[in-house]
Amino acid sequence: MKIAFMGLGAMGYPMARNLSPHHEVVVWNRTTAVAERHSSEAGTALARRPDELSDCEIVISILPTSREVDEVVDHLLPEIAAGTLWIDATSGDPSSSRATAERLLQKDVRFLDAPVSGGVPGAEAATLTFMVGAAEDDFTRARPLLELMGRRIVHVGPVGAGHAIKAITNSMMAANLWVASEALVAMRRQGFDMKVALDVINGASGRSNVTENLLPKRVIAGEWPLTFKLGLLDKDVRIAANLVHELHLASPLLALTSQLYTAATTSLGGDADYIEVLRYVAALNGDTDAWRE
Amino acid sequence: MKIAFMGLGAMGYPMARNLSPHHEVVVWNRTTAVAERHSSEAGTALARRPDELSDCEIVISILPTSREVDEVVDHLLPEIAAGTLWIDATSGDPSSSRATAERLLQKDVRFLDAPVSGGVPGAEAATLTFMVGAAEDDFTRARPLLELMGRRIVHVGPVGAGHAIKAITNSMMAANLWVASEALVAMRRQGFDMKVALDVINGASGRSNVTENLLPKRVIAGEWPLTFKLGLLDKDVRIAANLVHELHLASPLLALTSQLYTAATTSLGGDADYIEVLRYVAALNGDTDAWRE
Amino acid sequence: MKIAFMGLGAMGYPMARNLSPHHEVVVWNRTTAVAERHSSEAGTALARRPDELSDCEIVISILPTSREVDEVVDHLLPEIAAGTLWIDATSGDPSSSRATAERLLQKDVRFLDAPVSGGVPGAEAATLTFMVGAAEDDFTRARPLLELMGRRIVHVGPVGAGHAIKAITNSMMAANLWVASEALVAMRRQGFDMKVALDVINGASGRSNVTENLLPKRVIAGEWPLTFKLGLLDKDVRIAANLVHELHLASPLLALTSQLYTAATTSLGGDADYIEVLRYVAALNGDTDAWRE
Amino acid sequence: MKIAFMGLGAMGYPMARNLSPHHEVVVWNRTTAVAERHSSEAGTALARRPDELSDCEIVISILPTSREVDEVVDHLLPEIAAGTLWIDATSGDPSSSRATAERLLQKDVRFLDAPVSGGVPGAEAATLTFMVGAAEDDFTRARPLLELMGRRIVHVGPVGAGHAIKAITNSMMAANLWVASEALVAMRRQGFDMKVALDVINGASGRSNVTENLLPKRVIAGEWPLTFKLGLLDKDVRIAANLVHELHLASPLLALTSQLYTAATTSLGGDADYIEVLRYVAALNGDTDAWRE
Repeated sequence: MKIAFMGLGAMGYPMARNLSPHHEVVVWNRTTAVAERHSSEAGTALARRPDELSDCEIVISILPTSREVDEVVDHLLPEIAAGTLWIDATSGDPSSSRATAERLLQKDVRFLDAPVSGGVPGAEAATLTFMVGAAEDDFTRARPLLELMGRRIVHVGPVGAGHAIKAITNSMMAANLWVASEALVAMRRQGFDMKVALDVINGASGRSNVTENLLPKRVIAGEWPLTFKLGLLDKDVRIAANLVHELHLASPLLALTSQLYTAATTSLGGDADYIEVLRYVAALNGDTDAWRE
Repeated sequence: MKIAFMGLGAMGYPMARNLSPHHEVVVWNRTTAVAERHSSEAGTALARRPDELSDCEIVISILPTSREVDEVVDHLLPEIAAGTLWIDATSGDPSSSRATAERLLQKDVRFLDAPVSGGVPGAEAATLTFMVGAAEDDFTRARPLLELMGRRIVHVGPVGAGHAIKAITNSMMAANLWVASEALVAMRRQGFDMKVALDVINGASGRSNVTENLLPKRVIAGEWPLTFKLGLLDKDVRIAANLVHELHLASPLLALTSQLYTAATTSLGGDADYIEVLRYVAALNGDTDAWRE
Repeated sequence: MKIAFMGLGAMGYPMARNLSPHHEVVVWNRTTAVAERHSSEAGTALARRPDELSDCEIVISILPTSREVDEVVDHLLPEIAAGTLWIDATSGDPSSSRATAERLLQKDVRFLDAPVSGGVPGAEAATLTFMVGAAEDDFTRARPLLELMGRRIVHVGPVGAGHAIKAITNSMMAANLWVASEALVAMRRQGFDMKVALDVINGASGRSNVTENLLPKRVIAGEWPLTFKLGLLDKDVRIAANLVHELHLASPLLALTSQLYTAATTSLGGDADYIEVLRYVAALNGDTDAWRE
Repeated sequence: MKIAFMGLGAMGYPMARNLSPHHEVVVWNRTTAVAERHSSEAGTALARRPDELSDCEIVISILPTSREVDEVVDHLLPEIAAGTLWIDATSGDPSSSRATAERLLQKDVRFLDAPVSGGVPGAEAATLTFMVGAAEDDFTRARPLLELMGRRIVHVGPVGAGHAIKAITNSMMAANLWVASEALVAMRRQGFDMKVALDVINGASGRSNVTENLLPKRVIAGEWPLTFKLGLLDKDVRIAANLVHELHLASPLLALTSQLYTAATTSLGGDADYIEVLRYVAALNGDTDAWRE
């Protein structure tokens, strides 16, 4: 099957590599040099412009935001073949996805949203979770391809539902991270040893993915790698905030979380690692040296 | 060793039972009938009034709040023996604890705060975690006793530090629970299957003790047992909020969480189970039937 | 000049009456009976369907939300005369307004947003303030008409700016009202006399339009008229919240205010008077009888 | 009548001067040079140490916080004459005031709290408003003295009530100011002229003491005088937040306001003028040059 793969970032690069032994994969990337490297490493074909991909049976996109997806849709739309299935693995916006699905449907192209969790290790090991928003038959058609890149392929609802659930679960994490940051700053101010504090939290009720997996590496081991850009998390939180706004739901904690991430992103810049919010909370409280030793 | 044990609630009852094979334990409880039952079941001695306990070498208290601890201290204080060690396992208030420690010190009685995590199962199996705020020598003296009731005995700081860290970790959980509630209400409103939603969250970034251990039983299995009173969690959240207030720290999410639990507790009553906040968030958004089928 | 006037609500009815001595006014209203009454009382002509208005030189609309404006634009668009000027006095949404302006421009029709303040008394006395978002020449063209209905005609910026500033000033009022409600509930709980409390506030720093003009009538005189629907204020607050969201600004108080009005509107219904939020804040705190004697 | 006057700050200095023609006034100030100046200017007697004041019939204190009041009470308590009336015009803490009243009562000294509004101009012109928390007979006794310094003397409730209402009205102002700051930052970002924006707000629903009296001088005239220290406003907001906490009331906007002022005070320092929060809100949103031209 001829598959167009658009977006060779930290996630897309290994995902496309996992597809290439099984299908004819044509890759496109904004920075062509990355696509050339992929082509030589993984034996994929190379497209220099999005519109070279319009004859593929399947299009897979994984781009920073729905805006970039819309741009490549614009390029392919005039020539795209009827019957194509478009799988968007971007952490996108449900409203945009529904609009894009409608645009593509006028060309008899089906669209589904299939954002992932599992990070770069999951992308490399083909153990990702895909949260798929799709019509039933489109899900059935996409599933065998997704299984080449992931381990859990969950059909969560109609088009947009994948993006919605991804945004919501990431904004839960964002809230948990901010709360944990406030808690650690308060403990630190009182003189608690941070290793003891995290041990106690992780042996008690307050534990979460954030306190068990994300904070110890930074707070205890002192390693602050760039693993996920704050700007992308802020985008997810904003998508979730907008979604509850459109549903006319009162969600005060998610709404305030969105405000706080906006302030942090404005201050730190979108390219900072998302766990830097811990240092931002410390700095808000006058401690600019926290966790910098 | 003669040990006074005050407070035979869901936690204290099995904790005292775990002590009784090893020491001479005298139990007191506000409702004497419970103490009588304990006495006959566990072979403990029985005190009908707090002041009968003033000759014990060790006093262990585990009561609803620091207010009740202060009341029993009032009763014992006139006659309490110099050299007694008072271990307070209540989820108490750090400021109260420091004041109580000072009051007792004037009688040459040492006080330490040693709140627990692990719930009723941990209390029964003697696998609790104790978070101990104490001077070094008092901690050393208490440790062998705590090891009869728990598995992890962590010295977290001076007097008050145990209560502080317990309140903070519980308020992290409270925040995580409220955020998860907002998220589930938003997902339900969009028609997501709740089992799928929790599965996806728990396979992704948003997972926490709340989503992995607390919500599935209620949301999926439909079981809503009373495991921890909302009024007690609200008390912990208020202690944490007051603590960050006294530290003059900006902690907007913890502060807002405290406000929301106050509203929920006012509406549901303090005797409701704490996970009822999920239904409260649904009701705030007009869905009074949610998770009641 | 032939003017179409669409929307004869509490504001629109007297506004159209103030125009009719000076121009040929054709009125339309969703409920035709109201338009018939206006026609017989004010000597205006009557349109039974929006599309009867497409030959007017000027269209003035004042409808509940931008959604209803869009609907009447849909009806008039096919037949509307090039050169028409559309003045929208609705408290609308800036994004919608800009989109509507673009749609109309394709028919060579100019659009401006001109929401009002001053309430029903101002509409009747032709003393309204108009906050106009418009191109310079459109503003110049509209001004003489607006002066027949109002006293202060302020050009605040390009299309959308009128709606933006109206939404923002109303959401400031909404926030001030909620804060004042929290304050009065706290004072009442402590036993303050409400007249004394408002007197003191209004003689001191905390005073605002809310405490000086809106609350005394209800709180002291015990009169709770319906003057402005909560649902419409909630809409304004949501427009402002969405606007700061789109600007990617951190505005925690406006964001939280929006959440609280959503909860209040869900609970009280959109047809309640907006000052009912005071009673809602009391009810959230367990006092359902407050200010009901 | 011999009156001790403690605290010759911006407010106390002219207040004591207004008393001196009518009574024998002995002044004390932490920095003695100020008291010396007052003595030579206003003909008041001078105390170099608080304990020199213990024979006065009346003590009036106006100090930064209740903490400083407690300190001078400590000094006077051993020698203070039974029957003395203590009038505390500090913007203090209601809980502290009640405790202080109890301490003094054991010496048969009566205490009342009488914080003021009206600012330095009101202090100079003797047109202050006093909000008095007092027993009825103490109020009667204090009133003639207060009338020498102010125009409106309002008995608002028992001891502590004056401090409570002062803290609450100031925290309403603080919230209104922060909301107005968010609104102006949003308007500025959209390119609104600030004079037009304030004019529109002040002609519409969103107007308040903040937008009518406090902001125009800074925002339009570009004058940023130091009129009231941010640290003192933050203290008032914290007193109000603590008060609603103790009442176990859900007051989410006041609570969040308190958090935001804490962050602003930490960043700007307590000596900054309180209207600097407008610039802080701008800086949070990336605009560090706002209103600095």
